[in-house]
Amino acid sequence: MRMAKLSEAASVPVPTIKYYLREGLLPAGRRTAANQADYGEAHIRRLRLVRALVEVGGLGMATVREVLAAMDDPRRSLHDVLGTAHWALAGRSTATGALPVGEEARADVDRFIDELGWTVGPEAPARAELARALATLRRLGWPVGAGVFERYAQAADRLGAWELDQLPSAACRPEAVERAVVGTVVFETALVALRRLAQEHHSARRFAEPDAGPPPDANG
Amino acid sequence: MRMAKLSEAASVPVPTIKYYLREGLLPAGRRTAANQADYGEAHIRRLRLVRALVEVGGLGMATVREVLAAMDDPRRSLHDVLGTAHWALAGRSTATGALPVGEEARADVDRFIDELGWTVGPEAPARAELARALATLRRLGWPVGAGVFERYAQAADRLGAWELDQLPSAACRPEAVERAVVGTVVFETALVALRRLAQEHHSARRFAEPDAGPPPDANG
Repeated sequence: MRMAKLSEAASVPVPTIKYYLREGLLPAGRRTAANQADYGEAHIRRLRLVRALVEVGGLGMATVREVLAAMDDPRRSLHDVLGTAHWALAGRSTATGALPVGEEARADVDRFIDELGWTVGPEAPARAELARALATLRRLGWPVGAGVFERYAQAADRLGAWELDQLPSAACRPEAVERAVVGTVVFETALVALRRLAQEHHSARRFAEPDAGPPPDANG
Repeated sequence: MRMAKLSEAASVPVPTIKYYLREGLLPAGRRTAANQADYGEAHIRRLRLVRALVEVGGLGMATVREVLAAMDDPRRSLHDVLGTAHWALAGRSTATGALPVGEEARADVDRFIDELGWTVGPEAPARAELARALATLRRLGWPVGAGVFERYAQAADRLGAWELDQLPSAACRPEAVERAVVGTVVFETALVALRRLAQEHHSARRFAEPDAGPPPDANG
C-alpha cells in the first residue's frame, strides 16, 4: 500500500510516519518509483507498536529504538524482549518516585520476593518501587513488614499468570511485544481505576447512611 | 506534650507544624503559658494524616482542608469522607490522563460497572479513567469491549472487599481516613510494582531460554 493508505490504516499522520522513517523506527518500504514506496502489514504493526511505546508508554525516541532493537534481534528470547520493554517503562514517574529507599526496606522486599518464589532479576526496577512503598508506610508511622503486601502479591500473581497466558505465541514477537507494552501501561491504569471503584462499592456497602444508597445485598 | 516533642513524635519539623497551625490544618494546642501550648495524641494523629495527604497523596493545602472538613463533620458518613478523599486523589495525573474519552467508551464502561453490580457514584473520576483506558486500546486498533477488564475487575473486587475489612471501625474516623488515604496511594504503587514483578516471573517461566533461569516448578 502507499503511504497515504498506511497512514489511514494505522491512524498515524503522514508527517509522523516520515519522522519515524528518518529516525529508523520504521523500516523503509519497497521502492516502486523514484519517490514512491510500497508498505505492508508489517509496517502497520510496527507503527502501532511505536505509537503504543510513545503515546501510551511515554517513551522517548532513544528508548523506543532500544526496545525495537531488542525485538528485532533473533538471539534474544521473548522474555528478554519483554524485560527490555518493562525496564523502559519503569523510568516513568510514580507518586512516591522521589522518596528515598532505605537499605532495610529494600532488603525486606527482596526477602519477600524470594519467599514468594518469584524469578525476578535482582535489578528489576519494580523491586525499588515496592521498597519505596514500604519505606513510605514506615515513615508515616506504620510499623509494617513486607508481608503487608501479601494480598496484593497474590492478586498480582494470578493476574500476571493469566496475562502471560493471553499473549500470542512467542513466534509472533511484534504482536507479543505490542500487547505486553500496551498491556503493561493501559491495564495498569485500568487496574488502578477498578480498585478505586471497588473500594467505593465496598465502602458504600459498609459505611453509607441507610438512605444514601441501596442496602447490602445477599451476594456479599 | 510540647511542640518539640510533638515534632519528634510525628516526625514533622517544627516550622511545618507552625505552618499547619496557621493554615488551620492542625487544631491549636491547649495553652499552658504565654507562648507555650500542650499537644496530645490527637495532634500526632492529625499531623500524620496531613502528611499522608500532602506527601503521599500529593494534595494541595486547599484540598487537604476539604478532606479534613469532611472528616470533622459528624453529619457525614465514613463512606462520604472516604469518597471525598478518593475524589481529591483522583486529580493526580495518570499515564493516559491527557487523552480524550469518547462518549461510546464511557457508556460501555458505565454498563460494565452496572453489570458488575457495583454501587458507584455516576461522577466517580475512576469511571472516566477506565473509559480512557478502553478508548486508548481501541485507538491502538484493539477492537475490544469493556469486558476486556473482567479479570482486573474480579481482582479489584476481591482486594477492595479485603481492604475495607482491614479498616478500623467507623467509630475511629481519623485513623480510618488516614488508612484509606495512605492505602489508596501507597498500596496502589505497591500493586502496580507487584504486577510487573509477577509478569517478569511468569514471563521467565514461559519464555526464558532454558539456561537463563530455573525450570518451571510443579506448583504453577
